[in-house]
Amino acid sequence: MKYAIWIYATATIMLLGSFIMQQKKKVVLFGDSITEAGVTPGGYITRMSAMAAAEKRTADFEFIGAGIGGNKIYDLYLRLEDDVLKHKPDVVVIYIGVNDVWHKRLAGTGTDPDKFEKFYVALIRKLTDQNIKVVLCTPAAIGERTDFSNELDGDLNRYSNIIRNIAKQGNLPLVDLRKSFLDYNLQHNPANKESGVLTSDRVHLNDQGNILVAEAIWSLIKAM
Amino acid sequence: MKYAIWIYATATIMLLGSFIMQQKKKVVLFGDSITEAGVTPGGYITRMSAMAAAEKRTADFEFIGAGIGGNKIYDLYLRLEDDVLKHKPDVVVIYIGVNDVWHKRLAGTGTDPDKFEKFYVALIRKLTDQNIKVVLCTPAAIGERTDFSNELDGDLNRYSNIIRNIAKQGNLPLVDLRKSFLDYNLQHNPANKESGVLTSDRVHLNDQGNILVAEAIWSLIKAM
Amino acid sequence: MKYAIWIYATATIMLLGSFIMQQKKKVVLFGDSITEAGVTPGGYITRMSAMAAAEKRTADFEFIGAGIGGNKIYDLYLRLEDDVLKHKPDVVVIYIGVNDVWHKRLAGTGTDPDKFEKFYVALIRKLTDQNIKVVLCTPAAIGERTDFSNELDGDLNRYSNIIRNIAKQGNLPLVDLRKSFLDYNLQHNPANKESGVLTSDRVHLNDQGNILVAEAIWSLIKAM
Amino acid sequence: MKYAIWIYATATIMLLGSFIMQQKKKVVLFGDSITEAGVTPGGYITRMSAMAAAEKRTADFEFIGAGIGGNKIYDLYLRLEDDVLKHKPDVVVIYIGVNDVWHKRLAGTGTDPDKFEKFYVALIRKLTDQNIKVVLCTPAAIGERTDFSNELDGDLNRYSNIIRNIAKQGNLPLVDLRKSFLDYNLQHNPANKESGVLTSDRVHLNDQGNILVAEAIWSLIKAM
Repeated sequence: MKYAIWIYATATIMLLGSFIMQQKKKVVLFGDSITEAGVTPGGYITRMSAMAAAEKRTADFEFIGAGIGGNKIYDLYLRLEDDVLKHKPDVVVIYIGVNDVWHKRLAGTGTDPDKFEKFYVALIRKLTDQNIKVVLCTPAAIGERTDFSNELDGDLNRYSNIIRNIAKQGNLPLVDLRKSFLDYNLQHNPANKESGVLTSDRVHLNDQGNILVAEAIWSLIKAM
Repeated sequence: MKYAIWIYATATIMLLGSFIMQQKKKVVLFGDSITEAGVTPGGYITRMSAMAAAEKRTADFEFIGAGIGGNKIYDLYLRLEDDVLKHKPDVVVIYIGVNDVWHKRLAGTGTDPDKFEKFYVALIRKLTDQNIKVVLCTPAAIGERTDFSNELDGDLNRYSNIIRNIAKQGNLPLVDLRKSFLDYNLQHNPANKESGVLTSDRVHLNDQGNILVAEAIWSLIKAM
Repeated sequence: MKYAIWIYATATIMLLGSFIMQQKKKVVLFGDSITEAGVTPGGYITRMSAMAAAEKRTADFEFIGAGIGGNKIYDLYLRLEDDVLKHKPDVVVIYIGVNDVWHKRLAGTGTDPDKFEKFYVALIRKLTDQNIKVVLCTPAAIGERTDFSNELDGDLNRYSNIIRNIAKQGNLPLVDLRKSFLDYNLQHNPANKESGVLTSDRVHLNDQGNILVAEAIWSLIKAM
Repeated sequence: MKYAIWIYATATIMLLGSFIMQQKKKVVLFGDSITEAGVTPGGYITRMSAMAAAEKRTADFEFIGAGIGGNKIYDLYLRLEDDVLKHKPDVVVIYIGVNDVWHKRLAGTGTDPDKFEKFYVALIRKLTDQNIKVVLCTPAAIGERTDFSNELDGDLNRYSNIIRNIAKQGNLPLVDLRKSFLDYNLQHNPANKESGVLTSDRVHLNDQGNILVAEAIWSLIKAM
């Protein structure tokens, strides 16, 4: 009788365990310096973990940061195996594009739009081939002026359109950070400031920026 | 007696002549390849002459094209004496800025915004020092897409803002071609085409573009 | 007896077969527009086949062109499986680098030197992992002036040094086209011409350039 | 008799005075940040004054620095009146060109070679029109590697050639700093270092660089 109870208890624990393990989703955030900073205190990935905890979903999600400063789309493609696939993730959030545009001006080493699309699509294919779910993000901002006079706005919109189009064609979930940042700035940046609203330096996220990104990605992830 | 009449008649003609000559305003259009093409058949300067004729104002205005392909603001400053002041103009229309932005991408030889402003202001001062009236134009377009995804839109807006600000500070007449082109495209370019609405190649004016520019400048000039 | 003959015949055929299969080396030339043009009449790959024929080595080598215009090192990495590995080559000659430097100026989309090295090394590893022999080439020229005043000479030398260093570290055969072109020009370009000696347009090979490249690669390949 | 002596004495003093005034040459050093730093302790202009003192030529020369950081050839043209002509100099040393090349990479705002030449020639004409003697300098370095792999070497050589050619055509004295720096580095930079030999940061002069430039310009100036 006791033995039977013990068996029953063990089986229950194992079942629960397998259930929990089945549920615990590994989410890799894959990107550039913005994502590299995301795992620091106050960073958007740290905040997503806190949001999961606040909603008692800690058991459901594990967030792993895989951001490296200066990365462009082809850098993600190069280090996919080593930095992402090795984690055997359930979901990969691709958050890239700022440097592909910015480095044209900064160092003459941005990414051509057709190449950007090619590598992006190839990256997605490598992930979906392994049944990994993919979430796309548009690059949020290079400058926060609301009168459309940020130097690289036009190009950043173009690359965001490429990502939006890939999402649409592949029926993939999209976190349109570019749109969210613009909407937020139109409301909260009446002084037409270049930075200081959602970014500290036109590109990298300040506290408010990290909150916005965390909420935007989390609200999509938690429903997956 | 007859002699006196002859003297009187001669004097009248001379007076009228001097009156007419006083009225005939010399207007120099000072700019880049867009203005260089302005004097060809169908070009915006040619059309301004035609508009003046249609409104029987031919006697009032003489239009002189002073455009050279590839020119930026500092090129105008360099050739001001040789190509503009020698005409002893009454009005100079400055239509520049596309190459200052575009050549950043094209050849790494655009113009820094602070230098753009400095040369622009210095150019105006040299003209107003000689009691020449100055009309400013914003650079119309580098790409006609209406979804704000033309690569250089942000920078072109920035340089347009510089010009708008100079006009405001100096209380100078402004032909805001950048705004006119955007407004026109928002109405007439539903397909979000990159060119073919007001430009032939994203930058240079097609027939409709030449008409728009001619009308915009002429409507301001004829009231001066 | 009949049986013995049959065994002998079979063994002979197998031997011959293995001998022929062992000898006929598949050589893929992997690169950009220069290599894309290499398979046309007069192109350097076409000439290598002719050289093999002239030396009665046609049975030993098969040359396959895998060049695509505008390619940089990371483009080669992206299309390695589809365009190279599918041929199951014995040797891959990597001839890349011009666009990695040139496109910095041309479109703001060149390749950072550290990224260039990373992708180059990753590409080699993918090839050597499959026991494919790799031959490296330095990028020959962007401009043929001999007084060191070609705009991109410094950067092209830098990227050539990266390749030379990879070759040295990995003990890999190197065709130093950059050095060959410079040596040739120092002898045959006393007028300090920008193009017309080994290139038609500063970058792409004219007849003499195709001959030089064909001889340089062939003399190394035929001894492998 | 006494009166005659007084006259004689007065005449002598006046003669000496006029002689001295005739001899005291105003030399303006006209350039960019390198020249801006030239007037600080240890700077090349400060050192030229010290060299003049050491050779008891202090009475003969007055050195005036007119350098502003970030300046290119057209910036010199713009501020010629305000910063140079107002001093009524006898000699102007033009030391410019680094930013015209460097800013192509740094900000997309370098100077096209044909424009560089045009503004350089126009600047010289404005000076010689006022009987001011002009001394030209080639831009010394952007990187000190001796194996010709400094990224911008080719372009810097090209712009140096433009200056050399202007000097030759106009029979003007030239301080070929580009050549002096290369020669010095070939002797003293066996480790192929990027900076630290004559520059602190590839561009700006360290102590040894300031000494070299001061000696090169002084040895030419003192003989004028």
